[in-house]
Amino acid sequence: MEHIGFNKPYLTGKETEYIHQAVLSGKISGDGSFTKRCHRFFEERFGFKKCLLTTSCTDALEMAALLIDIKPGDEVIMPSYTFVSTSNAFALRGAKIVFCDSRKDHPGMDEDLIEPLITPRTKAIVPVHYAGIACDMDKIMALAAKYSLYVIEDAAQGIDSYYTGADGVKKPLGSLGHMAAFSFHETKNIMSGEGGMIVLNDERFFDRAEIIREKGTNRSRFFRGEVDKYGWVDIGSSFLPSDIIAAFLYAQLENLDDIQQKRRKIWDAYYEGLKHLEDKGIFKLPFVPAYASNNAHMFYLVCNNLAHRDETIRLLKENDINAVFHYLSLHKSPYYTPKYDGGELSETDRYSDCLVRLPMYYELDPTRVIDVLCKPR
Amino acid sequence: MEHIGFNKPYLTGKETEYIHQAVLSGKISGDGSFTKRCHRFFEERFGFKKCLLTTSCTDALEMAALLIDIKPGDEVIMPSYTFVSTSNAFALRGAKIVFCDSRKDHPGMDEDLIEPLITPRTKAIVPVHYAGIACDMDKIMALAAKYSLYVIEDAAQGIDSYYTGADGVKKPLGSLGHMAAFSFHETKNIMSGEGGMIVLNDERFFDRAEIIREKGTNRSRFFRGEVDKYGWVDIGSSFLPSDIIAAFLYAQLENLDDIQQKRRKIWDAYYEGLKHLEDKGIFKLPFVPAYASNNAHMFYLVCNNLAHRDETIRLLKENDINAVFHYLSLHKSPYYTPKYDGGELSETDRYSDCLVRLPMYYELDPTRVIDVLCKPR
Repeated sequence: MEHIGFNKPYLTGKETEYIHQAVLSGKISGDGSFTKRCHRFFEERFGFKKCLLTTSCTDALEMAALLIDIKPGDEVIMPSYTFVSTSNAFALRGAKIVFCDSRKDHPGMDEDLIEPLITPRTKAIVPVHYAGIACDMDKIMALAAKYSLYVIEDAAQGIDSYYTGADGVKKPLGSLGHMAAFSFHETKNIMSGEGGMIVLNDERFFDRAEIIREKGTNRSRFFRGEVDKYGWVDIGSSFLPSDIIAAFLYAQLENLDDIQQKRRKIWDAYYEGLKHLEDKGIFKLPFVPAYASNNAHMFYLVCNNLAHRDETIRLLKENDINAVFHYLSLHKSPYYTPKYDGGELSETDRYSDCLVRLPMYYELDPTRVIDVLCKPR
Repeated sequence: MEHIGFNKPYLTGKETEYIHQAVLSGKISGDGSFTKRCHRFFEERFGFKKCLLTTSCTDALEMAALLIDIKPGDEVIMPSYTFVSTSNAFALRGAKIVFCDSRKDHPGMDEDLIEPLITPRTKAIVPVHYAGIACDMDKIMALAAKYSLYVIEDAAQGIDSYYTGADGVKKPLGSLGHMAAFSFHETKNIMSGEGGMIVLNDERFFDRAEIIREKGTNRSRFFRGEVDKYGWVDIGSSFLPSDIIAAFLYAQLENLDDIQQKRRKIWDAYYEGLKHLEDKGIFKLPFVPAYASNNAHMFYLVCNNLAHRDETIRLLKENDINAVFHYLSLHKSPYYTPKYDGGELSETDRYSDCLVRLPMYYELDPTRVIDVLCKPR
């Protein structure tokens, strides 16, 4: 019986060839030719106004926090059911994190619960497109407009996924907020081991983003010949990845359509194969709202309770299949509990206890996973 | 006439082979097998207590600032003649940067000027081993002990360079302070495009460093089986590089001795070839104090004034040789000038105006550079 892992990074075959090209070019620090090709790809394919590769999605979120000048006391609203980096990036700048509960039908934050959390100190909303499934961005952008807030999409899992709002136009995730953060960690559809990207949809941020990403210097302008020396002009960090990473990523991008098609097939097979269990009330399957598309980043089940999930994971493990739970509620984390002054977030806790992710990767044959889950117990 | 660039990244030949191995291993996110091999190499070769690769030296410095809990109002003493990241890492946490002037005989900070800058709010001293030449660490560590300060070595340029103090023991740079930051940017002796490392010499920081580097989670303990789930336990970021980067770096490390020997030969050729110009008072050559070693990271000249340096750079450029100036005084930068309340730093300004770096890389034949500089004018 072959072991089925939770994730297996897929290689298109061109990764090391492109890395070799980058290495031979003699310019493998940040912003080399493959980085520029990646930027162009994303801008042309998805209509993002400006893209900048970063060393991780975490770094992209930190750039966002710097760009909107988060200061101690500022409040940022986000789901509690998310990866720590969503909150850390803002906590690092001193923000108070205001956690919003998840939806009943989906782990994404409940858009209808956001407005009561807004105070005069609220500066931003950070919707997380969990499993690559869009949040209801019309609702969120309307709140942002009403209260003059920034919206930073945490699109870590959201590559090549879409939202269709009231205007009927299908727009890629990452193009809807003022800015967005993507991840290319090896668990993602498109990956480079570690890696990320910030997307800027508001031109006001273009110049400063280049500066913050280049250690607070105007080096980008220097390289374009716009200034004759560069110096320290702002706060910043080193957010740009080696061109080796960009070369790897570019090989993946060239195969985006193939990768997405393959993953969707696996996702559909899971859905078809397990639907009857949902009908019997055994598991809940992923819900995709009408306004959202599905980029097949993840296939998850929601169990009825923690014991049921433990049993499901154990059953799969006995069959040499690695299924894993996901986030622990951040408002109950050792770090944030002492700082948390909000109410109970029961849906968040439910996903924290009951959600299990099934193996999901390009080369997966999901048949055995489905069979094990469907065996009468 | 062949163009001589300022820097040309040297490839040992094994970089893409190791990257290929990393890629085939199916684990190319952070802390894979090449990352562990790099950590072991550094710990064994240099006796560093604990090493952790980071995505850049900037990130290593930011980790250091988090580890010593820099808060708004804390003061950090460092040279003004340094790269912006030295100061940015602490400015990001709200520190007041207290700039110290350079030495008359060397661009490193003047150890005898540090004590008057210490106040009750001083938390750390950050000596920068400019050009890989050690600061006088006995003096700095004595001040740190006297005033209970942390010492964070900015060893960005300091790989495989040494300090011999009053005890007569030759110790590698990076092993002397509480912690140290190294760079593997493509301009460094040993490189991976972008890349860095934090060295921890004080065991008190070991556990928290792992947490801060892993987004503020105890994931490292989880992977070692010490806890059964991991969560948000502290502030943090994503500081770990892809194993692709570590694979590249490891190929370089295997050839450390060869690289260093070759660079020293070039450095010595410069020194021998240009010494008579120093004797005539035309340029100052690099000064290496008796307690310091020379890792041949950089060969620089100090001109008599700005006009002389401009002329030197122009002369070399006319001969298709790219020589470059270096840092602009940080205390006079657009970002820090409005915040600076210290005195004049005349040596810093002199190096800012007068220092020029000559081409320096593994494959360089320095003969033509020397000939151009020695031609009677």
